[in-house]
Amino acid sequence: MPSVTKDSAEARVPPAGCRALAHSNIALAKYWGKRDIERNLPDVPSLSLTLAALSTTTLVRFDPDARADEVTLNGAPAEEGAAAKIRTLLDRVRREAGLAWHAQVITGNDFPTASGLASSASGFAALALAALGAAGLSWPSPAVSALARASSVSAARSIFGGFVALEAGAAQAEPVAIDTTALRMVIAVTQTAPKKVGSTQGMLRTQDTSPYYEAWRSAAPRIYSELRGALARGDLERVGEAMEQSTLCMHATMLAAAPAISYFSPQTIAAMDCVRDLRAAGTFAYFTMDAGPHVKVLTLADRAERVRRELETVPGVHRVLVSAAGAGARIVEEP
Amino acid sequence: MPSVTKDSAEARVPPAGCRALAHSNIALAKYWGKRDIERNLPDVPSLSLTLAALSTTTLVRFDPDARADEVTLNGAPAEEGAAAKIRTLLDRVRREAGLAWHAQVITGNDFPTASGLASSASGFAALALAALGAAGLSWPSPAVSALARASSVSAARSIFGGFVALEAGAAQAEPVAIDTTALRMVIAVTQTAPKKVGSTQGMLRTQDTSPYYEAWRSAAPRIYSELRGALARGDLERVGEAMEQSTLCMHATMLAAAPAISYFSPQTIAAMDCVRDLRAAGTFAYFTMDAGPHVKVLTLADRAERVRRELETVPGVHRVLVSAAGAGARIVEEP
Repeated sequence: MPSVTKDSAEARVPPAGCRALAHSNIALAKYWGKRDIERNLPDVPSLSLTLAALSTTTLVRFDPDARADEVTLNGAPAEEGAAAKIRTLLDRVRREAGLAWHAQVITGNDFPTASGLASSASGFAALALAALGAAGLSWPSPAVSALARASSVSAARSIFGGFVALEAGAAQAEPVAIDTTALRMVIAVTQTAPKKVGSTQGMLRTQDTSPYYEAWRSAAPRIYSELRGALARGDLERVGEAMEQSTLCMHATMLAAAPAISYFSPQTIAAMDCVRDLRAAGTFAYFTMDAGPHVKVLTLADRAERVRRELETVPGVHRVLVSAAGAGARIVEEP
Repeated sequence: MPSVTKDSAEARVPPAGCRALAHSNIALAKYWGKRDIERNLPDVPSLSLTLAALSTTTLVRFDPDARADEVTLNGAPAEEGAAAKIRTLLDRVRREAGLAWHAQVITGNDFPTASGLASSASGFAALALAALGAAGLSWPSPAVSALARASSVSAARSIFGGFVALEAGAAQAEPVAIDTTALRMVIAVTQTAPKKVGSTQGMLRTQDTSPYYEAWRSAAPRIYSELRGALARGDLERVGEAMEQSTLCMHATMLAAAPAISYFSPQTIAAMDCVRDLRAAGTFAYFTMDAGPHVKVLTLADRAERVRRELETVPGVHRVLVSAAGAGARIVEEP
């Protein structure tokens, strides 16, 4: 990216800051494992669907009078771990913009944070876009995706709408031009407490100790290719099968780690059983789980209500959301 | 084994038949996968504890007037799959004894059949011993173990008491001379219905389709050695850790199969969580699960009641048994 002098940068900074919105995404072919920890590059390819129903909105304002970066997350000061990751992204943007000012960051999710509902994906996508805008920079989407990816690999995908691919070792995600109109993701929220083992920690322990990690590295690209191929030819059953194999292989790699990492709660198993029962009864429905206990179900628009109703009967399921595919991250214009 | 003529064999057959009892066993280092399907040889080494609280008693009587083998299981005629496996073992014994008579087999478990409480282990161990006795044959334990193993690999271990090892590719199990007095196995019975996928079917599907099977084949002997070494030097915490890694690696291999094989029920997860909580509170307790939803917990004699009480509070746990180590299979003398 071209560097600019500090003076010209400050002239370009909008005093009111910049507000951006990004949607969360659910990986059908899962990302788990880092090829390069320092540069935060994924070890396996992934393919996701961006979700309209889950979003983060973030305001970034660079302020010549501020004495420090100030981060408010869902109405409260962010805890230090999250704040440090946010400052790292702001520092990258300041470096690119030739800007020395501190920033005010106000960010909010419309879903529980750090619960396995991919808040870091929408969060860092919205932050990347808002920070660039607030610094007066206008980058093409692949560069915004790479900036978000440096903080959170899955955030790279939330820059784009619909189906999105992120290749193994790639710096940025890319949209996959396949129609999403007929699809829905039904999300069974089973727990609202923060998860026990964070994704990064879980990933690194898996890489270091799981006897199945190398087999995962070999299997994941094959599952990704099968899924992408099935998607391209409209074979949704094969998409669903590959999706379930991807998530189960990912969780299996973790169960084999030492100490084991298990994101399954009793209600995760009950919801998976519910999905299998729906399918046995003829309803198109396939599950996927991320680094958390929630169960996300790929289905068709005209089956989504039935899937929602069944999941609502599962003991321990608090709430069920239905989401259509979402658009990519965008600057929110003030009314 | 030396062959005998039909005439001498019939002279030796006790008219009242022979009754044998064998205990079930729980593998701490799991067996999953067949090296030789035809000969039924295990692909990985396993190490088990024979359990006093779970047993099968089997009467076999060879009868010159019987027109067919007749098998009664828990008071009802055995279904054809089980009956066919039993006839195969009887045929082997008849061949060895030079005997042509059909048999009456009456067998009963003191626990639910085909539920993942290893009924085939105690069942084929008791059957092997009773069939040999009924045919007038008296074989050394390793040969009885090999006969039982040909029908059910885990049955090879139930011929012996206490800790028992079965090496990869081995024809028979062997006792491991380590004191078991201080140990208990606490069994949380979570479901009494027969399991969805039988062990053999599940094993073969895992071998054929799981991308993790080769890694399991490599990891299992290492976990077995660690567990056996820790047992020999009395490092029970390391025994417990290796035991949990063995069962989780086994189940992980199955989750990665296509279609996936999952023996976890919601209460399996809840019981595992209960064990982790007990451990976090300072109680020695480690879990293991076989091809079924039950959770078996290794603990100490003086902690067993506490573990039982906690497991009884887990929703979906029907019943909790506490077992000390059991003796090997034996002929039951009539009073």
